[in-house]
Amino acid sequence: MADQKRMHQDIETLRKISEPCAAGTQRPSYTPEYREGVEYMKGRMAEFGLEVREDTVGNLFGVLRGTDPEAPSIISGSHLDSVKCSGAFDGIAGVVCALEAARMIQESKKPLKHTYEVLGTIGEEGTRFGQVLIGSQFMEGSFGEAQLDSVKGLEDGLTLRETIRNYGLTGDPAGACRRQDKVKAFIELHAEQGPILENAGKSIGIVENIVAISWLEVSVHGVASHPGTIPMDVRHDAGVGAFELICAVTRYAAQHYNGIATVTTGRLNLLPGSTNCIPSECDFTLDIRTCDEAARADLIRYTVETAKQVAVKCRVEINVQEAVHREHVPTDSHIEDLVEEAAAKLGYSHMRMNSGAGHDAMIFKRIWPAGMIFLPSHEGLTHHPDELVAFEDMEKGANVLYEVIRMLDEE
Amino acid sequence: MADQKRMHQDIETLRKISEPCAAGTQRPSYTPEYREGVEYMKGRMAEFGLEVREDTVGNLFGVLRGTDPEAPSIISGSHLDSVKCSGAFDGIAGVVCALEAARMIQESKKPLKHTYEVLGTIGEEGTRFGQVLIGSQFMEGSFGEAQLDSVKGLEDGLTLRETIRNYGLTGDPAGACRRQDKVKAFIELHAEQGPILENAGKSIGIVENIVAISWLEVSVHGVASHPGTIPMDVRHDAGVGAFELICAVTRYAAQHYNGIATVTTGRLNLLPGSTNCIPSECDFTLDIRTCDEAARADLIRYTVETAKQVAVKCRVEINVQEAVHREHVPTDSHIEDLVEEAAAKLGYSHMRMNSGAGHDAMIFKRIWPAGMIFLPSHEGLTHHPDELVAFEDMEKGANVLYEVIRMLDEE
Repeated sequence: MADQKRMHQDIETLRKISEPCAAGTQRPSYTPEYREGVEYMKGRMAEFGLEVREDTVGNLFGVLRGTDPEAPSIISGSHLDSVKCSGAFDGIAGVVCALEAARMIQESKKPLKHTYEVLGTIGEEGTRFGQVLIGSQFMEGSFGEAQLDSVKGLEDGLTLRETIRNYGLTGDPAGACRRQDKVKAFIELHAEQGPILENAGKSIGIVENIVAISWLEVSVHGVASHPGTIPMDVRHDAGVGAFELICAVTRYAAQHYNGIATVTTGRLNLLPGSTNCIPSECDFTLDIRTCDEAARADLIRYTVETAKQVAVKCRVEINVQEAVHREHVPTDSHIEDLVEEAAAKLGYSHMRMNSGAGHDAMIFKRIWPAGMIFLPSHEGLTHHPDELVAFEDMEKGANVLYEVIRMLDEE
Repeated sequence: MADQKRMHQDIETLRKISEPCAAGTQRPSYTPEYREGVEYMKGRMAEFGLEVREDTVGNLFGVLRGTDPEAPSIISGSHLDSVKCSGAFDGIAGVVCALEAARMIQESKKPLKHTYEVLGTIGEEGTRFGQVLIGSQFMEGSFGEAQLDSVKGLEDGLTLRETIRNYGLTGDPAGACRRQDKVKAFIELHAEQGPILENAGKSIGIVENIVAISWLEVSVHGVASHPGTIPMDVRHDAGVGAFELICAVTRYAAQHYNGIATVTTGRLNLLPGSTNCIPSECDFTLDIRTCDEAARADLIRYTVETAKQVAVKCRVEINVQEAVHREHVPTDSHIEDLVEEAAAKLGYSHMRMNSGAGHDAMIFKRIWPAGMIFLPSHEGLTHHPDELVAFEDMEKGANVLYEVIRMLDEE
């Protein structure tokens, strides 16, 4: 069985390896603190007999050789980098549970036929480059020479190539890219980052899909004027146009697609921005996420149609553009079944669900069978110093992961 | 009769006396350009036989002595300063029409019994100090030594005292303050700054009230989180709470108080402000203007009550505070009647109305009978390079003003 104490030590040690920040943990990729975290994990991997390897872009591997050198690898892990002022679990929990599964394999004295690799990816969060999923995309092959020069640090402006070289690695894409036929399966364990499992009282989430994302960029154009001299019925108030549209779309999503889709406006600029001026311009974003393509199409349709109506009603111009369109990624159904079987066998409460966030697993799914195990996030908190996955749930997660690895190995 | 050509020359000359700006005219108080504008007006005043005087804080006077040295003055004018990238009429039109009335008095060869003073106030707009109505408040007496030190330039940080001294004046409040018993009446002619007269097809607006203002500062507190992992029905989205409240209050004002009150949100900040983050905080302002105290009370009541409902519905905290509360100012009813009589006598279309903007007249009304004449603003544009008062309307305004001065003089 999984050992909570070992996982507790790993989580708490990594929590403290942090750049100075207002609160929480901050360990962006390619920083001295990131290196310190990697070195800690290398030590723990070696301590339990794993071969330690770092690829050319900074992904970390702890390898347990299988008895059949021809059999493809089973890989489990998640990312080791964090957002700013984050908690200790996002990404890290998956690497720690994958390592715990390796320790359990070692302790079982019953080696696997397949090689098992514990993976800690780099640059999954957009913290440093405004570009997510860097390590996994190098492994999968969609990142190469072009990205080494085009991806640049948000703060220092250095290219990814310069950053990786300053970090002490070559960055050679060939040294990170993994062959499709050499991996049997990838399993990522991750905190849910939402309240669904906790609210349902379940310990194990079996992810069926990683959501599709559409980012709509909306601009509303009105006429600035004096707030006291223009009657309400002849205004061209860009702010009111924007607020009416956001309220309508948000209500529509909540009413028709609660639990199926989310709509969020996180960024909004009102111009010229004076208390005593009717706004002339309002730009905002609508983040739409769902695994239901019909829901996404309907939400975009509703937004565009409602924008036309609001434009007439509020006497403004509204332009809606889809700036980002990413399809949803179904996870591997066989792995889903194995996770469910393992949770049932261990007597853990479980449910099938979708992931509202993107993960390395959706990149690996392009080339390998890939699945995800979710653990409950306390109060749904994420990207927050107080994010918490209970260690009892970490134990359950590692046990499920171990069972799935065994089942995959024995197929 | 008023001479359009003289007024056209004054307006167009002053339009060109401007700080460099993207478009339009920019002549903030106490700048070299403001001085240049004052010197032009001094020259025009002297050209038509007025005694020219500048008080200790920069208000400009052109004085026509009356035949009775004991009779109190009749004063007309407006402000000579502008907002940034403004048009040529806001404020200036009133000074030019007051000067034209003086020229008409001179040309009539029939001197007034009362002394007539053409006034160009300084610092009416908040452009330079974020503090409006500076010159008129020195004249009225509510500005004194304290304000000389407490009012500071938004850009240079200099005190009003330093600014006035750098401009070449003493700033001595006693040299600007006017005795209450030495003025019979103040009449301010101004562009309407809105579309009411133009839409009604009227040439002369008789102002009955200058609106009351309440500035509500509203802060909404929610919980930041991931936009894809939190279902719509359990979010604490500060943005949605804010938008729902603004939409409700704006609709309520439009439905129940159109033409009576205005509600405007010109400033809004959404935090943390990322496309992929549910907002934790939203601060915004509600500018409420009306001459109907019951409407103001009802709009504030509706805002506070709706905030409570929205807070529950959207699972956020909402705090509403009235940061500014200024009562409405009724203008002098006798002057209103005289303006109406003059417009009728001259055969000009006219209507009674309220002013949605603040004006020097509301300061002078504290100590003297004060009234206002509005002229139509083309398309309601104001604080805009394209603001326009037709010169035919300027002519009508000067003629009405002249008649009113004659009637006041003959009482």
